[in-house]
Amino acid sequence: MTREIPARIASFRVHDHIGYGLVTDGGVIDLSKDFLPDFPDLRAVIEAGALSRIVAAGEGRKPDFRLDEIEYLIPIANPEKLICVGVNFPDRNEEYKDGQAAPSKPSLFIRFPRSFTGHERPLIRPPESEQLDYEGEIVIVIGKGGRRIAEADAYDHIAALSLCNEGTIRDWVRHAKFNVTQGKNWDRSGSIGPWLVPFTDAAQLDDIELTTRVNGEVRQQDRTSRMMFSFRYIVSYISTFTTLVPGDVIVCGTPTGAGARFDPPVWLKPGDVIEVEADGIGVLRNGVEDER
Amino acid sequence: MTREIPARIASFRVHDHIGYGLVTDGGVIDLSKDFLPDFPDLRAVIEAGALSRIVAAGEGRKPDFRLDEIEYLIPIANPEKLICVGVNFPDRNEEYKDGQAAPSKPSLFIRFPRSFTGHERPLIRPPESEQLDYEGEIVIVIGKGGRRIAEADAYDHIAALSLCNEGTIRDWVRHAKFNVTQGKNWDRSGSIGPWLVPFTDAAQLDDIELTTRVNGEVRQQDRTSRMMFSFRYIVSYISTFTTLVPGDVIVCGTPTGAGARFDPPVWLKPGDVIEVEADGIGVLRNGVEDER
Repeated sequence: MTREIPARIASFRVHDHIGYGLVTDGGVIDLSKDFLPDFPDLRAVIEAGALSRIVAAGEGRKPDFRLDEIEYLIPIANPEKLICVGVNFPDRNEEYKDGQAAPSKPSLFIRFPRSFTGHERPLIRPPESEQLDYEGEIVIVIGKGGRRIAEADAYDHIAALSLCNEGTIRDWVRHAKFNVTQGKNWDRSGSIGPWLVPFTDAAQLDDIELTTRVNGEVRQQDRTSRMMFSFRYIVSYISTFTTLVPGDVIVCGTPTGAGARFDPPVWLKPGDVIEVEADGIGVLRNGVEDER
Repeated sequence: MTREIPARIASFRVHDHIGYGLVTDGGVIDLSKDFLPDFPDLRAVIEAGALSRIVAAGEGRKPDFRLDEIEYLIPIANPEKLICVGVNFPDRNEEYKDGQAAPSKPSLFIRFPRSFTGHERPLIRPPESEQLDYEGEIVIVIGKGGRRIAEADAYDHIAALSLCNEGTIRDWVRHAKFNVTQGKNWDRSGSIGPWLVPFTDAAQLDDIELTTRVNGEVRQQDRTSRMMFSFRYIVSYISTFTTLVPGDVIVCGTPTGAGARFDPPVWLKPGDVIEVEADGIGVLRNGVEDER
């Protein structure tokens, strides 16, 4: 396979300006001003099926901002839906130590965008818990909406890829009899980014490596070909009950090796650096800070 | 206590016009045109703390539309958050028949607005399941945002009340090892409405009766004073982990007596009429149709 460097499309803030643009090694090419008022944000770009159009508009242009000038934001700030897949890699089921067999259907839960921060921004550890944990995951962004999408057609509905550190306050996950909602929705406890990569080829998803490092040490590493519920299945299954729309974000599950797995568990603490990396998408990097 | 008829503020559609206004026995007073472009919808009204201002603007005006002309919409179409509380009335815990003790913290899950329809619109039974079930609940809408809101202050953060039929596809609730997401998010499987009632007095919530009828037969009936987790606790608990913002919608849990409780279970079917009623809020009424 020949490897082209895929386009990297980020949402960002510079001073008071919130925009989106192409990330290059030399800086960021701001595209948001070119496409106002039609496309105020990347969700609007995706709704219009215009990712390739904005990439083309940026080609060969000189960067508008240095990389150290911008603050990365989560790529899609306001999706209609942000759905996460639970237990989805081999051995993860065993991590729950509840003696139950592996499930035949995916566990799904929902996070609010405000539970995430952008690339290179700190994850926030709240005073209520010391159990901030990482989960490295691959993100798919829906381009073409639909209901009851067949698995065979699922890839036609994916516009872009990204990465997620699906940061979790582990003890609050177990507060409730059912549902992990409250352990998964602490403000800025996770991250999404650094950017969107347009999805144009099945090889970008079918068998890529996903790695999570904490302070340089590999903690999670697996390949998407080993997922219990494939990307195609996930799109098909979710669209059975809800109409997917452009810009919907699906976070597809994490390999074994979260901090909860260690004995004793190892939680994140201020000063730690967590990196989530996947072939062809990039590296999502975040520190940790105590809430102030 | 003297009983004033509280204002009833609905979102509605008439032909191609989507608006909001005051519901009176003689028809609907359309307020949305008066407050454009400042308040395009009821979320914007609540963000501006302007519920009482729009009510005052409508007082004494002649209705613009007959009640049989309008289609009720869910009052807030686009909340930042729509959070539901699970098991929250006595005996509900036993309905799950899993031998577990009553929980010390509320179970929370999230629904997407598209899983709800408005007053007098049909709930949709999908071809994938015959297990459409009702759950009558009280809805609170956040007016003043905040984080880590004290229970004592919680009522200051509630702007309005409404009702919910938190319709559920019961077999899909149990698809996953954790989380009820997929049984709770079928398109138009539940309803919210008919309208918002401004919340100005603790007596509107502290001990009101909540009743669900199916074809006129009482199936659920309890009082809010018996909730395991009070409205004040719910606001305080949720705001521990996530910043509440104006327009956030919280659906506060259902009494015992859903169709799943019967032996054998009794599911909703086309032609059924479900009414959810609470003192001082109103009656939310929906039929059932098979998806076409």
